[in-house]
Amino acid sequence: MTDTVSDRPVFIVSDSTGITAETFSHAVLSQFEEIAFQAVRLPFIDSMEKADAAARRIQQRADQGGPPPLVFSTLVDSEIADRIRQVPCIFLDLFGAFVQELEDILGVKSSRSVGRSHTNGLSKQYNRRIEAINFSLAHDDGQYIQGLEQADVILVGVSRCGKTPTSLYLAMQYAVRAANYPLIPEDFDRGALPATLLPFRRKLFGLSIQPERLAEVRNERRPNSTYASLKQCRQEIAEAERLMRMENIPWLSTTTRSIEEISTKILDEVGLDRTTY
Amino acid sequence: MTDTVSDRPVFIVSDSTGITAETFSHAVLSQFEEIAFQAVRLPFIDSMEKADAAARRIQQRADQGGPPPLVFSTLVDSEIADRIRQVPCIFLDLFGAFVQELEDILGVKSSRSVGRSHTNGLSKQYNRRIEAINFSLAHDDGQYIQGLEQADVILVGVSRCGKTPTSLYLAMQYAVRAANYPLIPEDFDRGALPATLLPFRRKLFGLSIQPERLAEVRNERRPNSTYASLKQCRQEIAEAERLMRMENIPWLSTTTRSIEEISTKILDEVGLDRTTY
Repeated sequence: MTDTVSDRPVFIVSDSTGITAETFSHAVLSQFEEIAFQAVRLPFIDSMEKADAAARRIQQRADQGGPPPLVFSTLVDSEIADRIRQVPCIFLDLFGAFVQELEDILGVKSSRSVGRSHTNGLSKQYNRRIEAINFSLAHDDGQYIQGLEQADVILVGVSRCGKTPTSLYLAMQYAVRAANYPLIPEDFDRGALPATLLPFRRKLFGLSIQPERLAEVRNERRPNSTYASLKQCRQEIAEAERLMRMENIPWLSTTTRSIEEISTKILDEVGLDRTTY
Repeated sequence: MTDTVSDRPVFIVSDSTGITAETFSHAVLSQFEEIAFQAVRLPFIDSMEKADAAARRIQQRADQGGPPPLVFSTLVDSEIADRIRQVPCIFLDLFGAFVQELEDILGVKSSRSVGRSHTNGLSKQYNRRIEAINFSLAHDDGQYIQGLEQADVILVGVSRCGKTPTSLYLAMQYAVRAANYPLIPEDFDRGALPATLLPFRRKLFGLSIQPERLAEVRNERRPNSTYASLKQCRQEIAEAERLMRMENIPWLSTTTRSIEEISTKILDEVGLDRTTY
């Protein structure tokens, strides 16, 4: 988080949360590996007063010298955008070109209304997300087995392989009711899935991980324990993968993948790839 | 989730997770309220073989008639993109124009490498996010008070006002260590904050909600209970807001706001608005 003069300044300006602008700018700037960027979020710029304050802040940074700040904007209101453009900066209008093009293609005018994508706190789709989060929290780590029949997917795998963050991400981002259930040494001794899961076999999706990485993660939690030993990790993972293959459960390794990548791969594989706007 | 012929077909095509493309397309298409869109995610299109399969799928949809599908693409590889462009569709290249422009501005070539923004499962920033998620889960609803001094922010408010999903979102999206702690009738009887929180007063951020909405939410959990009664909700909220004003705790209402909006407003107000790429 060092803010050196040599870091290229970036401002993310939005009339709403700025999440779209941030996601987009992050993806684009990731293509320029050798340059370090220092980004500042300026969300909720939805009045001329706030536009003035934002413009002053960008101006101050520009006055410190160096190359002009990059401004990634999802501002819809042209008067507000024009205020920002008065500052010496590289202004990138993320929506402009596409909204214009889509108006032509779709043959209707856009509403040009501010911040529509993340401010719908009372919509049906939004309530489905909140319910999914509550479901995933209640069904984390097999702690609650009632209602598993309502799960869209049940993640299985050894302790600390990434089930919990993945379940929460699936719920939060995609309104997917993702439960998760641990595979433990007792299951491997019996050589069978936990009995609780048998009725839901078709909903199971497995996560695995490299033993070395698992030992690292477990050591952070319980240093120098048998639980965290490489030997134990190797054995549990070998058994878990054997069980998943035997039971024909689709699975993937989380080792070098982010939660986003794991989650979207699961959706892709289980066929939850549709959404309605 | 009805998929009628009149819904305009949308395909989200990416060589990685497709999250950037989906966030962006959702934001842009939200500007066209009167049109219903049916979107299909086609992530991880990172080979010609997968490009062929994706192209076939889009072609099939186009063959069903109606207006041509919209394709939102963050494909970086031009050969893969060209394969998709052969299908009769409206192809929107989200990165193209901006990456080109930034190459000129920054004076360096982009890496044009695929899926860099969400696939960094072993980076330092990524580990910070996972740690933040674990922290927020462990410090959900005041269940664990050790380590509160490591929190970036501690959300306070009455039961079911939105603390848990907000904490998890802050952790997941922004690597913010967000704890949350309930304000309960006993606190209001004493007319003071829980003693546990006193050393961390400067980290507190309050959430409130309209009594009518709170009663709705609580009724889903415990129908017809005193806990869910409008009278009880009104009283708790009045007391909680009084306490937050008295203690000078910044707070906001969650009633009509999404988790994204609540979270970014909190970051904005507590000054956690910087990030390094």
